[in-house]
Amino acid sequence: MRKSYHIAVVGATGAVGAELLSVLARRSFPVASLRALSSARSTGKRVQFRDESIEVEELSEKSFEKIDIAFFSAGRDVSRKFAPLARAAGAIVIDNSSAFRMELDVPLVIPEINPEDVNEHRGLIANPNCTTAIALMAIYPLHRAFVVRRVFASSYQAVSGSGARAIEELKAQTEAALRDRQVTPQIYPHPIAFNVLPQVDTFLESGYTKEEMKMQNEGRKIMHLPEFRASVTCVRVPVYRAHSVAVTAEFENQVSVRQAREVLAEAPGLELVDEPHNNRYPMPRNVAGKDHCEVGRVRLDCALENGLAFWVSGDQLLKGAALNAVQIAELL
Amino acid sequence: MRKSYHIAVVGATGAVGAELLSVLARRSFPVASLRALSSARSTGKRVQFRDESIEVEELSEKSFEKIDIAFFSAGRDVSRKFAPLARAAGAIVIDNSSAFRMELDVPLVIPEINPEDVNEHRGLIANPNCTTAIALMAIYPLHRAFVVRRVFASSYQAVSGSGARAIEELKAQTEAALRDRQVTPQIYPHPIAFNVLPQVDTFLESGYTKEEMKMQNEGRKIMHLPEFRASVTCVRVPVYRAHSVAVTAEFENQVSVRQAREVLAEAPGLELVDEPHNNRYPMPRNVAGKDHCEVGRVRLDCALENGLAFWVSGDQLLKGAALNAVQIAELL
Repeated sequence: MRKSYHIAVVGATGAVGAELLSVLARRSFPVASLRALSSARSTGKRVQFRDESIEVEELSEKSFEKIDIAFFSAGRDVSRKFAPLARAAGAIVIDNSSAFRMELDVPLVIPEINPEDVNEHRGLIANPNCTTAIALMAIYPLHRAFVVRRVFASSYQAVSGSGARAIEELKAQTEAALRDRQVTPQIYPHPIAFNVLPQVDTFLESGYTKEEMKMQNEGRKIMHLPEFRASVTCVRVPVYRAHSVAVTAEFENQVSVRQAREVLAEAPGLELVDEPHNNRYPMPRNVAGKDHCEVGRVRLDCALENGLAFWVSGDQLLKGAALNAVQIAELL
Repeated sequence: MRKSYHIAVVGATGAVGAELLSVLARRSFPVASLRALSSARSTGKRVQFRDESIEVEELSEKSFEKIDIAFFSAGRDVSRKFAPLARAAGAIVIDNSSAFRMELDVPLVIPEINPEDVNEHRGLIANPNCTTAIALMAIYPLHRAFVVRRVFASSYQAVSGSGARAIEELKAQTEAALRDRQVTPQIYPHPIAFNVLPQVDTFLESGYTKEEMKMQNEGRKIMHLPEFRASVTCVRVPVYRAHSVAVTAEFENQVSVRQAREVLAEAPGLELVDEPHNNRYPMPRNVAGKDHCEVGRVRLDCALENGLAFWVSGDQLLKGAALNAVQIAELL
């Protein structure tokens, strides 16, 4: 008989939480029971899991009794506070926040890249940053073929990365802008409708944002490549869902576009969409709601000796968050 | 007595044409007479120049009699056909299209960078590509300080770059998307509302688009740097007006952020907006309608030895087109 699991979802009413419930159902994850947890603000709301309507409970120290797997997607502070409690209660935590990603005894896992790292867990496994995960889905197979040294990347990040309220903000601001009215920004420091913001997350002393350094830091850990370098500019764009990344990558070995395309076409979780002359390339609009990421615009980089330029799009809420977390749970 | 000039504006009813009329007026360019020209479709419309309403005439072989300066902003094909006629009639052509930019005997000029090249003209001066012009406004002063070798850049291009009808298309698609309706794209191959398109212009055999190679090709000519390399990804974003470019640049000499900021702060036509901790950086929303470009997010590049990463925004219709053209005319 197949074992089934008692599951807790922390942040069940958020954008990622909603996707988690849907992915667990869609992939027929063996759920014995499901506890939906959130802050006091959302307590009493109901969420849908399969054909059940589940009442959302307030997150507390007692929330993790008899839980086998706890998914956290309620931000860094909630994870910092409650993940240790969940762990102490015997649950395995799969954490979508950045709280523990770089800790030495916490595996940081993309199942298509480093599934074996899950085995090292001590009750806590971290889910990578969304932009990093989406970019690595294409960088890693190319690394296996050509050995990556460094990348230069710019992101085009959807507002879904900032949660459900940011999606509402984009919508409300857009409605207002079309009527020549203005809505005061709540989530972002500046209006996002018909604008782009070269800021995602807070700034470090170096001038990079935290988000921008994740591709290098998390990329090193996930690919087991301590010398990997990544210079990234992260930009928020007025797109609801799905991130895109323009990447230029330098490799140790000689590259060819034909071989790169073959490698990318065969990579798990990735689809090669690369017919420029038919105007076919990845776009956020086309990958929203899809499990796989898409890669295209593959070309020999004209400013590097062994370089490739390419373009990746992926659903930030799925491969960038909920799907990856459930895939980790499946590895367990 | 100050000389004044008989001016023709080809493409007077387009997005750039409208800005040209406004820039000529705003900068008190010495206009003796102004002839507004367009295709048959717009003939009979009226455009406003200062306090005059001018009837738009159909462009023909006879349009350039007694004209001193002819501004062309009606696309490559119109320039190919009519610029030689204007020149033959004795006018100096300032062409905003890509038709003649790379021809050896045609100066390609950004007045803040290579004003002296104007003197080489033989009746035709080309205005650079908008994304190239905006990026070079920051790259060139840094080159003077540190000697640039190559850049990696990604663009965030507004729809105004595709003309007045593209602005209408973004608006109509956005309205429709908010009502869960769809509008068939006319200007772009895919919907642009709440989406980003990794395609600007047509594709070359190399996999780059024509637009993407302009930064290298035009950059070499404008900066007199035949070895300059630029790997660019050009992306259309749902912004009405003003382009942005994320740039990583490698230099021959050692760089410092302090010196880079000083150089950028003093560069003509450029404003340094670089206070990340106060959430101040360039954004399309803030530069739309402004003559100067803005640069910020200046930082030491973490994947290069002598590299700087930065972010530039500029109004594509002004510095990227109309303003630069009028500045060229002023040099004459």
